[in-house]
Amino acid sequence: MACQYFAPCEHGAGSFTIAIPKVTFGRGTLSEVGQRVTALGMKNVALFTDPQLASGPYVATVSDSIKAAGLSCQIFSEIRVEPDETSVDSGAAFLREGNFDGMISVGGGSVMDTAKAAMVCALYPSPVRHYFAKPIGEGIAVPGPLLPHIACPTTSGTGSECTSVSVIRINDLNTKFVFASPYMMPDQAVIDPACCDSLPANVVASTGFDLLSHAIECYTAKAYTQWAEVKNPNARPLIQGANPWSDLAATKALQIAGEYLVRGVADADDHEARDQLMWGASLAGMAFGNSGTHLPHALSYAVTHLMNDITTDGYAVKSPFVPHGISVIVTAPATFRYTAEAAPERHLEAAQYLGADLNGAGLDDSGELVANRIIQLMRETNMPNGLSGVGFGESDVARLTDSSIRQTRAIANAPRDSNRVDLENIYRDAVSYW
Amino acid sequence: MACQYFAPCEHGAGSFTIAIPKVTFGRGTLSEVGQRVTALGMKNVALFTDPQLASGPYVATVSDSIKAAGLSCQIFSEIRVEPDETSVDSGAAFLREGNFDGMISVGGGSVMDTAKAAMVCALYPSPVRHYFAKPIGEGIAVPGPLLPHIACPTTSGTGSECTSVSVIRINDLNTKFVFASPYMMPDQAVIDPACCDSLPANVVASTGFDLLSHAIECYTAKAYTQWAEVKNPNARPLIQGANPWSDLAATKALQIAGEYLVRGVADADDHEARDQLMWGASLAGMAFGNSGTHLPHALSYAVTHLMNDITTDGYAVKSPFVPHGISVIVTAPATFRYTAEAAPERHLEAAQYLGADLNGAGLDDSGELVANRIIQLMRETNMPNGLSGVGFGESDVARLTDSSIRQTRAIANAPRDSNRVDLENIYRDAVSYW
Repeated sequence: MACQYFAPCEHGAGSFTIAIPKVTFGRGTLSEVGQRVTALGMKNVALFTDPQLASGPYVATVSDSIKAAGLSCQIFSEIRVEPDETSVDSGAAFLREGNFDGMISVGGGSVMDTAKAAMVCALYPSPVRHYFAKPIGEGIAVPGPLLPHIACPTTSGTGSECTSVSVIRINDLNTKFVFASPYMMPDQAVIDPACCDSLPANVVASTGFDLLSHAIECYTAKAYTQWAEVKNPNARPLIQGANPWSDLAATKALQIAGEYLVRGVADADDHEARDQLMWGASLAGMAFGNSGTHLPHALSYAVTHLMNDITTDGYAVKSPFVPHGISVIVTAPATFRYTAEAAPERHLEAAQYLGADLNGAGLDDSGELVANRIIQLMRETNMPNGLSGVGFGESDVARLTDSSIRQTRAIANAPRDSNRVDLENIYRDAVSYW
Repeated sequence: MACQYFAPCEHGAGSFTIAIPKVTFGRGTLSEVGQRVTALGMKNVALFTDPQLASGPYVATVSDSIKAAGLSCQIFSEIRVEPDETSVDSGAAFLREGNFDGMISVGGGSVMDTAKAAMVCALYPSPVRHYFAKPIGEGIAVPGPLLPHIACPTTSGTGSECTSVSVIRINDLNTKFVFASPYMMPDQAVIDPACCDSLPANVVASTGFDLLSHAIECYTAKAYTQWAEVKNPNARPLIQGANPWSDLAATKALQIAGEYLVRGVADADDHEARDQLMWGASLAGMAFGNSGTHLPHALSYAVTHLMNDITTDGYAVKSPFVPHGISVIVTAPATFRYTAEAAPERHLEAAQYLGADLNGAGLDDSGELVANRIIQLMRETNMPNGLSGVGFGESDVARLTDSSIRQTRAIANAPRDSNRVDLENIYRDAVSYW
């Protein structure tokens, strides 16, 4: 497929566009945020974080560095895990009242995504839902620049520090939705892997599967040349399909996940593994932020919202709650069994990058191979056994599909087309793997 | 070496920082520049190009698209190949007089490098030499932001569209020197590989070896952890050593050079090869702009300046003239023979990425292997036979070394330390390869 990239399909897109923030990676870099704030010309800084992190050492390091640079900094921490429109509205109100000229976010995807969305709503007031793509929202484009933003991830999964994407929960519609604009890209990502040293194993596993699924979804996505051309370069969606750039970042992220995920979950002192996972998460963000994910993410939002009575360790969230990475990975093996026939080379290569033993397997085996490798990694990290492991059964398939089918562009970014029956079959196949 | 990256050496740097512009790649994208100019808020645009391109189709496409967007555009084309301080001063004067609010550059490295340097000198007036690092200049940092800049490369070598580096000729010192600042990064790179369709074979070869050498120099450079830590994150040099990011882009660029360079030189109609080389050149730019090159580039500047009577086909430049890519590649095989012992795994892997047949070779053979693969590619593309092929002999070694030894940071970015005698030996070994 790679060689065909530069030969566009008829009426297909002939180009791709990619962007990432300035990225700094290394232990100790949180303490440099103050000097970076100064260089960006910020004077009055909003620091977004979550209630748990607000009183912890990472936020203290960042706010101390801002004070050491002679600047003021106010903390906003009313951000729930899986942020909803209320989180965004509160953040926007905080920003409007404080008259800030810069943003720092310190946290996981929930914090960074809230920060991005809140800046939009603070600077260009409109209900957040208006900015979502149709059919959920009205597809209004973000009108212009936001505040300078330094994003500091504290988990190794989301990759949000490297994307212009924000995913927000819509409670009354039982789903989450992607809100994206080139203006939402952070100016800088400051990635300090020391933030992962104290993460519980279950969080490393869940976020690690988010990274893994970002990477494999990018690598198996429809090629950008297969999306219809959009004439205005400023109006092209970020979900543009796989391209040589996303391939490069995704394949490295897959190798990292295959090699280090089990090690990083098993041993909090394995700095090599956890540091690599942190780097892999950012790479996977650089990939999916410039290609888009597909079915596992599209199907996950219903899992997040429709769960029954389920408890999850390691997160400061009341049950019922399914962490994002788990909601993604429970349908991933079933998805790749379904999509493999449309892009068998890609699925076979992905299995290989993840460390599967191909052992003479051919293209016809590629879906099963990649599914089995993911299942193996799930079992070695104590992940739930598919949908049944997070409280769903056959009887939930219809309502899961009802919720998911509205994720039209992500569904269309898969290499194989799917209708309602296909999605139901994937959910059904995902009920139990072992 | 990759695994050791995240374990810093004592007193070594613990982090790395990388940045690239927003990148658009694809045939036909030059015609979108006008819409991108509008989105960046430019109203009065300076278009930098060279005298040959000024009356050609690429500049016409770009300026037509700017006019179609309802904006004005003035062309500056007084840029020589291998631009010197006069090119920069003229460009700066043009910018000051025109009161422009945006920059487009359409050309090879000479054009893009002049555009970057001229913006600095127009906005922050000072002799360009003051901005060069010591010992050549005074090491003054660029004080602040430049104009928004869309860089459009027309050759597949320089990678300047993806870097914050400008290389300028200093005639009275018989050398070129690197002038770099994060502010010099273009905002966008618009890379239209159709610009290479009509390039003469000799230009594809020369620029292709620039790309190849960028990639292998990045991949074999000193690791960033081996450079001394610089406490202020805003003062860290761009020549920071190899890092996981530069490795990723460099290895892909090496694969592209190994697979497509000979094809792209041999056949102007081989769009797959030439498009891949264009993408590879940008990747190699993303690599070296975030790691730095080392000896082949450091040694090349003397070759550019001290040549005797030599003619070169395919360039609109009076002889004596040695194209940049040729000036780099003539010393590359000898360099890697010298540096391999300090990083033999890297040299072996580089040979493999370039398509060498390892055939059971071990680490001790890595310098010879990579040198031989480069020599093979040089012969298959009719490159000169080392320094003697561009008019130098043993008797020139002392004056070449006198000139090169001032490139202190690039020389120190090599994996193996070198003194004057070592540089002389490399030049001597580079006189003739076959």
